[in-house]
Amino acid sequence: MNGERLGRLRDLLVEARVEGLIVSALPNIRYLTGFTGSNALALVTRDDTVFFTDGRYKVQASLEVRGAKVIVAKASLVRALMGSVKRRGLRRLAFERRRASFELYDTLRRGLKGCRLQPLAGAVEKLRAVKSAAEIAIIRRAAELNSKVFETSLREIRPGRAEAEVAARIEYNMRKLGAEKPAFETIVASGARSALPHARPTHKLLTEKELIIIDQGVILDGYSSDMTRTVAVGDLGRRAKRVYQAVLEAQLAAIAAVRAGVKARDVDRQARITLEKHGLEETFVHSTGHGVGLEIHEAPRLGRSEKVRLEAGMVITIEPGAYLGGFGGVRIEDMVVVTERGCEVLTPTPKDLRVL
Amino acid sequence: MNGERLGRLRDLLVEARVEGLIVSALPNIRYLTGFTGSNALALVTRDDTVFFTDGRYKVQASLEVRGAKVIVAKASLVRALMGSVKRRGLRRLAFERRRASFELYDTLRRGLKGCRLQPLAGAVEKLRAVKSAAEIAIIRRAAELNSKVFETSLREIRPGRAEAEVAARIEYNMRKLGAEKPAFETIVASGARSALPHARPTHKLLTEKELIIIDQGVILDGYSSDMTRTVAVGDLGRRAKRVYQAVLEAQLAAIAAVRAGVKARDVDRQARITLEKHGLEETFVHSTGHGVGLEIHEAPRLGRSEKVRLEAGMVITIEPGAYLGGFGGVRIEDMVVVTERGCEVLTPTPKDLRVL
Repeated sequence: MNGERLGRLRDLLVEARVEGLIVSALPNIRYLTGFTGSNALALVTRDDTVFFTDGRYKVQASLEVRGAKVIVAKASLVRALMGSVKRRGLRRLAFERRRASFELYDTLRRGLKGCRLQPLAGAVEKLRAVKSAAEIAIIRRAAELNSKVFETSLREIRPGRAEAEVAARIEYNMRKLGAEKPAFETIVASGARSALPHARPTHKLLTEKELIIIDQGVILDGYSSDMTRTVAVGDLGRRAKRVYQAVLEAQLAAIAAVRAGVKARDVDRQARITLEKHGLEETFVHSTGHGVGLEIHEAPRLGRSEKVRLEAGMVITIEPGAYLGGFGGVRIEDMVVVTERGCEVLTPTPKDLRVL
Repeated sequence: MNGERLGRLRDLLVEARVEGLIVSALPNIRYLTGFTGSNALALVTRDDTVFFTDGRYKVQASLEVRGAKVIVAKASLVRALMGSVKRRGLRRLAFERRRASFELYDTLRRGLKGCRLQPLAGAVEKLRAVKSAAEIAIIRRAAELNSKVFETSLREIRPGRAEAEVAARIEYNMRKLGAEKPAFETIVASGARSALPHARPTHKLLTEKELIIIDQGVILDGYSSDMTRTVAVGDLGRRAKRVYQAVLEAQLAAIAAVRAGVKARDVDRQARITLEKHGLEETFVHSTGHGVGLEIHEAPRLGRSEKVRLEAGMVITIEPGAYLGGFGGVRIEDMVVVTERGCEVLTPTPKDLRVL
């Protein structure tokens, strides 16, 4: 598995005309080597891969890392890596433009005088965007577990309970039902607070006849899932129901536009056109979706001006929303896997308006 | 409050001979301006402070930010910041060496040709290390809440329950009792797994007569707490009890060494000397403690070779441990605030061996 990934990365290194890449972002290191700990570096050259970690992770690295030589550094990992660069006589290396810290860059620059350092953006991220069948199988299980947690947690929602308590119960159910941990801080936003797309759960109590946005995801075997549903306790008024139907229509229209070869921005556009028909275009203040995998937000982004073309095997969210200040908001989010002819929805939870 | 912090930072800028600092680390921005959102930059000059965020945070910034001019950037925050630098005619600015990404540095370097950029390490972190009376009051409450969560959760520990479930219950109790969220992933490590200092909770079931390490912290009003206790279900054997007493003795010896003016490494040394007396020096594989505040790990570090002197108002953990491969481990951790004459322990939970 790692061999195939490393092979594809080497093709990108040849294209970028460098002899190797210094990988510092942990999710990228995990993708390339299998290591799940919190301190590591990797050097991928055209000929070999070297993995660096510290003494705490000696046993774990020997169990997890495949396809790379493991070096347990006595002092600094960067120094150990620079030693390997020098021993190999490498003279032109790339590093991760978006992920490396200035400090790492500066240390490399001072320590590797004979080596030209070239920033390279998103190389491993590009590989990660297209998932293998094995990765899709894991993500499917993560999405299914997330939906199971949602169903269990819905039974615990009632008026008078605080948003923060509902969020805490959801996260408890995640672990109880076998998740590694939440993929992000669970959002429970009710009433006027549901109009804030990035609301954090507060001590506000849930009441009847208000919109409640629940945005949750679990991590399973390292892979994230992500789902949003908007529900209500007690019947909603006509305005809220109309907004709900419009967002659902926009979400279905965006899903229908997903297919290998389509530009990301064209999927986003379908959601916007639909909301425009309902006079809600201005209330949709974020992008339509994002890739999901070893990180909760990864390539591609489905925004207004994203020209990147979708590829079969990409796993993305489709999550339009409408946020009406002072009134409330609706967001509906599924995960889908892009196929040659369309897409497959990975999220099994129904999308009709649930009144609890 | 922010005015005083900004004043102290300006003194450091004069010392570093720069006209201002570009702040990119979010905890540092929060410390200086009060902003709690997830996207921001700040420019602190000798004369003024400018805060930059995006449209999503317009309302939040106006509610939270004090002592700085707020600019809501239409496009990129960095571009808005570079505009402010140019309008002020600044020619020598520092940026955060350890916290800035290479990408931020590279964008600044290209966009600010007439301005000299100088990396500066740990300026705001240095201020943050010494807490005000108001900060200590919040941290005290966070430590007390953490202990309350621990007591509540102890009642839910029993043989046959998985480590991961106990961890999930602890985190649920955190929220239930009013915490913002866990300060880090709660550790519950039992039996031979307690010998792994960085163990993550697994599906291993708790059994009787084994060591169980519980390391937990809550965030309250933005400030973290951190505590470790080692407990047992059913009576432990003599060896485990001996290790427990040795670690407790080491922890008390380290606490007794804390005082303003003492070097961090001398506190660490007291823990090591004590463990050495019990033949356990080799089993203590990490440092004795770290600062805690807006981040769970911050300055100062209490390691073997840290020469920094403790100052009154620093809040640090004291957490020696002994890890015996294949057998089990013990760690005991409190938070203390450094005073002129010694320290005050902020963690109210007793430290005698608890057999449940």
